[in-house]
Amino acid sequence: MIALRDVRAAAERLAGIAHRTPLFNSRTLDGATSAHVQVKAESFQRAGSFKIRGAYNRVASLPESVRSRGIVAYSSGNHAQAVALAAQMLGTHATIVMPRDAPTVKRAATEGYGAEVVPYDRDEQDRAEVATTIAAERGATLVPPFDDPLVIAGQGTVALEMLEDTELETLVVPVGGGGLIAGCATAAHGLSNGRLRVIGVEPAGADDTRRSLRAGRRVSVEPTTIADGLLSPAPGEMTFPIIQRLVAEVVTVTESEILDALLFLFDRMKLVAEPSGAVAIAALLSGRLEAAGERVGVVLSGGNLGVDRLVQLVASR
Amino acid sequence: MIALRDVRAAAERLAGIAHRTPLFNSRTLDGATSAHVQVKAESFQRAGSFKIRGAYNRVASLPESVRSRGIVAYSSGNHAQAVALAAQMLGTHATIVMPRDAPTVKRAATEGYGAEVVPYDRDEQDRAEVATTIAAERGATLVPPFDDPLVIAGQGTVALEMLEDTELETLVVPVGGGGLIAGCATAAHGLSNGRLRVIGVEPAGADDTRRSLRAGRRVSVEPTTIADGLLSPAPGEMTFPIIQRLVAEVVTVTESEILDALLFLFDRMKLVAEPSGAVAIAALLSGRLEAAGERVGVVLSGGNLGVDRLVQLVASR
Repeated sequence: MIALRDVRAAAERLAGIAHRTPLFNSRTLDGATSAHVQVKAESFQRAGSFKIRGAYNRVASLPESVRSRGIVAYSSGNHAQAVALAAQMLGTHATIVMPRDAPTVKRAATEGYGAEVVPYDRDEQDRAEVATTIAAERGATLVPPFDDPLVIAGQGTVALEMLEDTELETLVVPVGGGGLIAGCATAAHGLSNGRLRVIGVEPAGADDTRRSLRAGRRVSVEPTTIADGLLSPAPGEMTFPIIQRLVAEVVTVTESEILDALLFLFDRMKLVAEPSGAVAIAALLSGRLEAAGERVGVVLSGGNLGVDRLVQLVASR
Repeated sequence: MIALRDVRAAAERLAGIAHRTPLFNSRTLDGATSAHVQVKAESFQRAGSFKIRGAYNRVASLPESVRSRGIVAYSSGNHAQAVALAAQMLGTHATIVMPRDAPTVKRAATEGYGAEVVPYDRDEQDRAEVATTIAAERGATLVPPFDDPLVIAGQGTVALEMLEDTELETLVVPVGGGGLIAGCATAAHGLSNGRLRVIGVEPAGADDTRRSLRAGRRVSVEPTTIADGLLSPAPGEMTFPIIQRLVAEVVTVTESEILDALLFLFDRMKLVAEPSGAVAIAALLSGRLEAAGERVGVVLSGGNLGVDRLVQLVASR
């Protein structure tokens, strides 16, 4: 289990490395939700999402003799770019295992941070296995996307900053594998003595954590959603017990609610969110989460949308 | 002529009213320009652009007995929304003269701030005349979009904030009628004793100020550009002499350079800019303005883009 002190230690390591991202509010958003809503814009974080917090905290915590043998990760998304950037900042080599058919732009972004991309075949190979084999062969360290105490503690600095900057009664956080919400709930619980309500949000098509909470054990789904950062089939071994203990509820949002929220953020608040980054705002705007009269903090977890993807999403409406 | 003290007086009036918008930087932008560039994001300003600064400063400076008789403006763009919002905040009535064929969304946004919209016919009527007639009939006050000392002083608070927040050697500002750059140049000149270089940027298809500077007098053009906030045919009577005295140079950018800059801001910096708002960044990214090794401040003047317009712009590439 991790505690507030682990999140504070992560914050110290991240000082001057990760950006302290700003909070945004909007009279229109407040009006639509009858709440006072503040949006933590991790779209302005380095590499475009919160992921650098956990990745850097993990890589920076390795002894130099271990770190110098390199880092391995498997991801085609924000975790890949974050691990590549963390490795570059800490002067070591990153190898990222990515599907052969990953978008060129994601591969280029990861290589742009100096990482080596190793493609694998989605249909024939298991990415975790490919990554583990590479790590073993090279003596490199695998940085998992969420199921790691230092990754979770790093992601928790999102909530730490929010609660240093403002007072909140409810905190709303996107849920994929659960690293972000486990870290944020740990920080929020520690700072508020359990008084702050932490709500998770999943796409209805990737509601593994909601189902797992109901079942009382980790269950898997076959996720399908436009929120490609939240496609994990099940909550993590390490993140799930933290979520069970500290998260009040997980609500779900539909695909069109996610897109509406993304467009609201763009048109009204001039904030760029990728679909995964918009789910927490979607829960409020759609009314699936009721928070009237409250001071609510919402995590906009990432902004790696790209104009072509936006055009595609708008065309699909 | 206005002076730094007028800009400071405007800043006092605007305290707690206009947002103090943040500065953003980007390693990619610095790399592409070989400069240290900071972007003042007026996209996050109230009503989505810098225009509220001048409009509010103007309306707030009216004696209560005059203000209560109402405000009139002619604009289909950001000035309309800004005047409507300023009037609403100050408890008076705004009448906005707008072309009959203005986009519904712009009309709705203006009405959303409580203003009365009076349509006119582009082909048969002169909007300034329509507005002046309404103002005379009602005893209301016309708030011009740029050619007014209090409007200019209000816009100058953009530069005042930038120079309070950071040190700059060059300041790059979009130029339409010239209110923003005249105010910013006044503030910058006053604060730096003339050492700061102020550069204006116009679309090549709306280069009335550049031509006027070369001619040594105000000349008109028939402007055509995607940057619809910069369509004024000539610099103002009041703004032009200030620009002549305090602006080092006006450079121009092409339509595709404006769009490239808009997309760079979106994809790389997660900032929403309307075309007019992107011209100053376009001058740097295109290399039309050389600022290697310098500390450069750039004004992103507004973010009222809208997703439909973005889709349209991308399709036109």
